[in-house]
Amino acid sequence: MQIHTYPSKLLENAVEEFAKLPGIGRRTALRLVLHLLRQPQAEVDRFLTSLNELKTNIKFCSVCHNISDTEVCTICSSSSRDRSTICVVESIREVMSIESTMQYKGLYHVLGGVISPMDGIGPSDLAINSLIERVSKGDVNEVIMALSATTEGDTTNFYIYKKIKDFPVMVTTLARGVAFGNELEYTDEITLGRALLNRVRFDNSFSVE
Amino acid sequence: MQIHTYPSKLLENAVEEFAKLPGIGRRTALRLVLHLLRQPQAEVDRFLTSLNELKTNIKFCSVCHNISDTEVCTICSSSSRDRSTICVVESIREVMSIESTMQYKGLYHVLGGVISPMDGIGPSDLAINSLIERVSKGDVNEVIMALSATTEGDTTNFYIYKKIKDFPVMVTTLARGVAFGNELEYTDEITLGRALLNRVRFDNSFSVE
Repeated sequence: MQIHTYPSKLLENAVEEFAKLPGIGRRTALRLVLHLLRQPQAEVDRFLTSLNELKTNIKFCSVCHNISDTEVCTICSSSSRDRSTICVVESIREVMSIESTMQYKGLYHVLGGVISPMDGIGPSDLAINSLIERVSKGDVNEVIMALSATTEGDTTNFYIYKKIKDFPVMVTTLARGVAFGNELEYTDEITLGRALLNRVRFDNSFSVE
Repeated sequence: MQIHTYPSKLLENAVEEFAKLPGIGRRTALRLVLHLLRQPQAEVDRFLTSLNELKTNIKFCSVCHNISDTEVCTICSSSSRDRSTICVVESIREVMSIESTMQYKGLYHVLGGVISPMDGIGPSDLAINSLIERVSKGDVNEVIMALSATTEGDTTNFYIYKKIKDFPVMVTTLARGVAFGNELEYTDEITLGRALLNRVRFDNSFSVE
């Protein structure tokens, strides 16, 4: 079905906006919009309000850059977490993945991506300086690199390793139970948890092949 | 990944709201919400406004119940459409599908569903009375039943047929048979049997294009 004949401009606008979301084609967008249209006004208001409030009021933790409702996130401000370990991740999705393994009790550092020249993402686009600053304070014993097992992830691993290797800190990386090319987000908890437990010391002999 | 550890209540609310949409699981919802969070405020506002305006200002055509920006929809008010033919469909999605075939120049009547006792949908829940009223005015020569080829669709076909058969109107239904591009081997028996019984004479006008 090619949809080029919308009976309503309002409908078309809503569908076009929905279709801008990643992985949502026009047909799915139409289905979602028509679903919302069938819902009671209060339900639609709740949907719109939740998104609006998120966008308006959301904060990012001033320490680890994780998403947060407060200035410092619940993990960074928790007294029960191991403050000597920092797990470096790409995005808050990976924080949630690792938290759900229940295998990790340290802190996080959310980079906001990985170094990817193809996408125009360099080290200065990522939260690397604030990581170095955290490490330089001397309270950190271990930095666990938990980036995707891709070339970009490895490039970022090396870049950060070089920046912090002179501090008295051990740099480790997730055990390669994670298959090359796989995104962390889609890795099941058991594999992810085991990869965390079996993390290995990071050095120059470590390569993708 | 089981997501049970949201770093933010605002994020959780937004994800839960998104996950209420049909076919959207929590993981997809999270992806969509985080995507929106990365967009500029103006972009998110556009998304929210389009949905809000649709919900607030949308009308349903007073003649055919199609979605519309105006009291009477563009199809019903068009002077170039054949006003003697009404195509009966379940929802506006089918209107859009049929419009995109460019094969139909008549009017529509959107029932709003099909009779389905299992789902508690009876004739009174559908726009059947207004269809009878349109037919009773005498301007209609043909009613094309274009409902789903399911038991519910057939039940609805019969119900409507009985209601309008005494008017001077021809009731037709979409041809049923093997879908274009379908392999015979994978066509179900009922479809294949019916396609055999309703076989048509092959001539030069019958072509694949």
